[in-house]
Amino acid sequence: MSKHLEIDFWFEFASTYSYLSAGRIERLCAQKGVRANWKPFLLGPIFKEQGMEDSPFNLFPAKGKYMWKDLERRCKKYDLPFERPDKFPQNGLKAARIAVAFSGSEWIHEFTRRVYLAEFSRKKDIGETETLSEILKQLGQSSDNILEKSESQENKSALRENTETAKSLGIFGAPSFIVRGELFWGDDRLEDALEFLIRT
Amino acid sequence: MSKHLEIDFWFEFASTYSYLSAGRIERLCAQKGVRANWKPFLLGPIFKEQGMEDSPFNLFPAKGKYMWKDLERRCKKYDLPFERPDKFPQNGLKAARIAVAFSGSEWIHEFTRRVYLAEFSRKKDIGETETLSEILKQLGQSSDNILEKSESQENKSALRENTETAKSLGIFGAPSFIVRGELFWGDDRLEDALEFLIRT
Repeated sequence: MSKHLEIDFWFEFASTYSYLSAGRIERLCAQKGVRANWKPFLLGPIFKEQGMEDSPFNLFPAKGKYMWKDLERRCKKYDLPFERPDKFPQNGLKAARIAVAFSGSEWIHEFTRRVYLAEFSRKKDIGETETLSEILKQLGQSSDNILEKSESQENKSALRENTETAKSLGIFGAPSFIVRGELFWGDDRLEDALEFLIRT
Repeated sequence: MSKHLEIDFWFEFASTYSYLSAGRIERLCAQKGVRANWKPFLLGPIFKEQGMEDSPFNLFPAKGKYMWKDLERRCKKYDLPFERPDKFPQNGLKAARIAVAFSGSEWIHEFTRRVYLAEFSRKKDIGETETLSEILKQLGQSSDNILEKSESQENKSALRENTETAKSLGIFGAPSFIVRGELFWGDDRLEDALEFLIRT
């Protein structure tokens, strides 16, 4: 039975609300005996297909202004540190490639959380290799080897495939959750998704 | 003290998620001793300023497909009837004019709720005078007089002013809530808005 209790957690490193979910999902899943499958993908190509060349939070300033306020409030609610980054959205490509290449490694969720913390609470640019190297070193990992493997053609293709899969699942934003084939969008639907999983 | 416990509830008759809030807000407010000020406005002019000539749920099909699923799930959660309308978005102009003209009348919240029910659970077109007349009659109101008053130049201006006020408050979608000058967007932030009001 318990093998069915799985949630797919689709996240994008540039996404503000994915930060909230990355900081919450493991605790919530542990409480309910659910396994989370962390699925990195890129939102850029999906936004582009919708005709958006930038984050909707930049394209629609009133929405963007609200989002930062809302994010700050929710970080407080969830006890997550927050400091508004100078640059938004950031380029999460390198981080996503690492997350794909090492998705089976025991340190990768902690890496992911620390990348989000660097981005949304430490004013770091996660598009810079230096930021990612620093985090990898903190985790006792060999930065050079990891970066090299993540930049292989095979791994680049794997990330592209993840993004194609996300699109085919009807995903149009991040974070998104899939449980038993049903899509739930947004950090504020994480609890609903888990409840749906447990109930059905 | 209790005079400060007020929430401004900005709603648009064409908005799916406003339906959820219209069906929930009075019960939630009663539990907390809060007064809700119902504020009808038009989202069309605000979307237009953002470059959108249609609902974002139509402009972005993946988002639209998800919204209907999400709405259905949330109606179930909140025990609100739901049937997907054939036409979306509908023209809420006439209904909004009535809601503005009779905002001080004791029957207006029930009128508003019934308009939403007609739209999102009875497959009625609320852009048609007939739909609104039927609801007004059910409430024992004189349909002709009400429609006439709501279509006065003065009242048309009042609705335009509401929309201008919404925009100036940073509102970009519906429903939106304002408590103590802070904006909360979306039916799923109604509880947060009330909590913020009580706490501060």
